Amino acid sequence: MVLPLLTRLDHVGIACRDLRRAIDMYRETFGLVVVSLEENQEQGVREAMLAVGPAGAAVGALGVGYVQLLEPLAPDTPVGKFLARRGEGLHHVGYGVSDIGEALATVAGTGIRLVDERPRHGSMGASIAFLHPADLGGVLTELVQSPGGA
Amino acid sequence: MVLPLLTRLDHVGIACRDLRRAIDMYRETFGLVVVSLEENQEQGVREAMLAVGPAGAAVGALGVGYVQLLEPLAPDTPVGKFLARRGEGLHHVGYGVSDIGEALATVAGTGIRLVDERPRHGSMGASIAFLHPADLGGVLTELVQSPGGA
Repeated sequence: MVLPLLTRLDHVGIACRDLRRAIDMYRETFGLVVVSLEENQEQGVREAMLAVGPAGAAVGALGVGYVQLLEPLAPDTPVGKFLARRGEGLHHVGYGVSDIGEALATVAGTGIRLVDERPRHGSMGASIAFLHPADLGGVLTELVQSPGGA
Repeated sequence: MVLPLLTRLDHVGIACRDLRRAIDMYRETFGLVVVSLEENQEQGVREAMLAVGPAGAAVGALGVGYVQLLEPLAPDTPVGKFLARRGEGLHHVGYGVSDIGEALATVAGTGIRLVDERPRHGSMGASIAFLHPADLGGVLTELVQSPGGA
């Protein structure tokens, strides 16, 4: 295994019922600003990425992480079902990896089940894959390879 | 308000029933290592901090975040009650701030309720304070000022 497998605390994913209202709350409370706003039909979400980092740091710079706000496109989506079952709140955590293909193979080799056998498209051009929470202490865990790697 | 109020994605707090087992899982799956192991009587937890960052980065360096694993010292503690109600999984998220006193005053001024009116002792010598999840979209949110600031 290439260590460390995880190179960054990339983001926390937060399920919300009203994306616009959630964005406003993070801006008004903490001064966070949206750096990406996307609709991901495959995952059934409308999502916003808000940067958290040192003053003046550019998106993607070392030390910049994200709050990812997720509003479901419909009730029968993963995030829609999460909201119905658990209400608004923390949904998953995403970690950076250098090479998502290698990382998935390594993780699968330890016996952890993969939600995504192959990487798919995530926010801001990243390649992402989810790991099964039942094998990771109840934590839905996402691996993220940014377009530039890591 | 001094912007950004939040300077880092500091850690994700994860509630677990067996700290030793959870540590082993993060080590075996991802190669993460424990950089701090503490018992916090005030908060009723035994906790481990595992560093997530670029290869070779020192604890506290720019770009290093943490997985915080929390095992309750008793069932009638906040984390013990969380486990009984929701099971193992994501418990809270912690963000770095430059000055926790100023940050608490700023946040309180926006109408968010504080769990901790004054900072208290957190992991690795930090000053920390929790904000009320009911005012933050169901997310228990912690502010963290490291011993060196930010």
